[in-house]
Amino acid sequence: MKEKLQQEWASFIEEATTEEQEILRLFLNGIKRKKSGMNESYISSFLQIEKNTVADGLEMTFPITPFALNSLDIVHGGVTATVLDTVMGTYAHMLISKDRAAVTSEMNLHFLAKGVGEKIYSKATLIHKGNTRLVMEAKAYREDGTLMAHATGTFHIIPRPEK
Amino acid sequence: MKEKLQQEWASFIEEATTEEQEILRLFLNGIKRKKSGMNESYISSFLQIEKNTVADGLEMTFPITPFALNSLDIVHGGVTATVLDTVMGTYAHMLISKDRAAVTSEMNLHFLAKGVGEKIYSKATLIHKGNTRLVMEAKAYREDGTLMAHATGTFHIIPRPEK
Amino acid sequence: MKEKLQQEWASFIEEATTEEQEILRLFLNGIKRKKSGMNESYISSFLQIEKNTVADGLEMTFPITPFALNSLDIVHGGVTATVLDTVMGTYAHMLISKDRAAVTSEMNLHFLAKGVGEKIYSKATLIHKGNTRLVMEAKAYREDGTLMAHATGTFHIIPRPEK
Amino acid sequence: MKEKLQQEWASFIEEATTEEQEILRLFLNGIKRKKSGMNESYISSFLQIEKNTVADGLEMTFPITPFALNSLDIVHGGVTATVLDTVMGTYAHMLISKDRAAVTSEMNLHFLAKGVGEKIYSKATLIHKGNTRLVMEAKAYREDGTLMAHATGTFHIIPRPEK
Repeated sequence: MKEKLQQEWASFIEEATTEEQEILRLFLNGIKRKKSGMNESYISSFLQIEKNTVADGLEMTFPITPFALNSLDIVHGGVTATVLDTVMGTYAHMLISKDRAAVTSEMNLHFLAKGVGEKIYSKATLIHKGNTRLVMEAKAYREDGTLMAHATGTFHIIPRPEK
Repeated sequence: MKEKLQQEWASFIEEATTEEQEILRLFLNGIKRKKSGMNESYISSFLQIEKNTVADGLEMTFPITPFALNSLDIVHGGVTATVLDTVMGTYAHMLISKDRAAVTSEMNLHFLAKGVGEKIYSKATLIHKGNTRLVMEAKAYREDGTLMAHATGTFHIIPRPEK
Repeated sequence: MKEKLQQEWASFIEEATTEEQEILRLFLNGIKRKKSGMNESYISSFLQIEKNTVADGLEMTFPITPFALNSLDIVHGGVTATVLDTVMGTYAHMLISKDRAAVTSEMNLHFLAKGVGEKIYSKATLIHKGNTRLVMEAKAYREDGTLMAHATGTFHIIPRPEK
Repeated sequence: MKEKLQQEWASFIEEATTEEQEILRLFLNGIKRKKSGMNESYISSFLQIEKNTVADGLEMTFPITPFALNSLDIVHGGVTATVLDTVMGTYAHMLISKDRAAVTSEMNLHFLAKGVGEKIYSKATLIHKGNTRLVMEAKAYREDGTLMAHATGTFHIIPRPEK
């Protein structure tokens, strides 16, 4: 099995364009991030999401790579949604006890400016903490400070599932 | 450059676990789908989104691979958001003239059931077509027929940007 | 007390404009509807909301009176929100047991066309029924068949409060 | 015409319960507020919405009267939606030129705590100002400081319609 995979990858890399070589480097980096536990999901590891706890919330940053773009060469709306869901959900988990999990039940997104530049910064804050749900807010900014997207999300608190 | 990439990939593959080998096959498949134009973005190609035009809307299907999962081993909310944004946005483009583009300005998502099974089906339909915006609806279903997620989205109609 | 109220109303009616006389007739009608139990809240009774059960959902209709208008003389967005919340919430109560209540926890509204004409029709349908919440959809139409507004709403199921 | 109205009101007031007398006082107050231009719509005048400009946004307050309640004797979700739409829309108008109007195209609401007490405070702030739309945020608080509801809204900027 591995031999076939080795051959297939070797021949693909042989003919890879410059953009594809960049993507291949990204993927290798991403899969290693996932392996090391640096990111919890493949999609987060491929987007190279980095987190940074701050006083009143949680921040996450990701570089704008070809993997993050849509066919118009701006950040894909689904990528923005993924990052805002991730930053809100991760912060939600920081606010509840360890035997609980927070699952997204609803999300509202406003896309406000094109996602361009080198990096996107995002930050989640808490709107409301109830017994059974958390309502969170998140914002995504470009490097030039422009607000790119705004989200609110509802996270239901459930007993943490066994893995 | 390519030589270094070849070596890095070869040594990674050498030590890859079974799940990682599956991911590597997915990535190779995904990057080839993007190269061939079968999908328009890397994220769609990696999710292996397939589309299928139907009478009153547009359908898209994707397999539940490790790439689509979150840390709880169910479909990542961001993946669901990506697919629902993609099916609504692609259908929006089918409803406007070729010199225009439709960009997501707002999206509302309800997550209704765990994303589990082999495949997820999604379908976009039109709620409203105005001069400057389209409002779309999309649903995502599991193979067992359970409604997994529901979305509405606003797409602004703009002159198609030069690439 | 009543004597003072009688005098104040009598002197207001004496100087009422034609529109104000229409409003006064509406109010008297509304307050009688509330008194008779025809509507459950003053706001519904003043909007003269009528309900009509249908096979796959619930319909509500209201006349466009001066009371329903905003300062631009089209149906007030808050009135549309009130009616869509009411039709979804009332239908939600029809789908749960009598010892439970359904309270709105989240609502998303799209305003699609001006509210003009004689009447507005609305209809609620069910998207998802879980153990703890219902997700509903509602549409509001003008008499000419134009879709005026679209809503989705989340209703949490709670033990019915004692009054 | 007026004579009949006088008789109808006089006989209704004669038999009015204490709550109905309170409602009648509210209505008379409301219709006078509308007549004087203090509120721009009947629904705002009946809710007795008061506005107060602040440095970074706009505040509106209303008393919890029987008119604002639903059948469970808490503030009606439609009333909350009306006030949050009104505070965001009014603030939007303060941010655009006088020959333009801002119309609600989309609104997302989270209901976070029961509306009880004497008064509800609400405040609108700006999230994003573009060429064709404003995205606003609004919060509603009880007197005890509890956040009762949160909203975001999209307001489209159009040429001001002739009345």
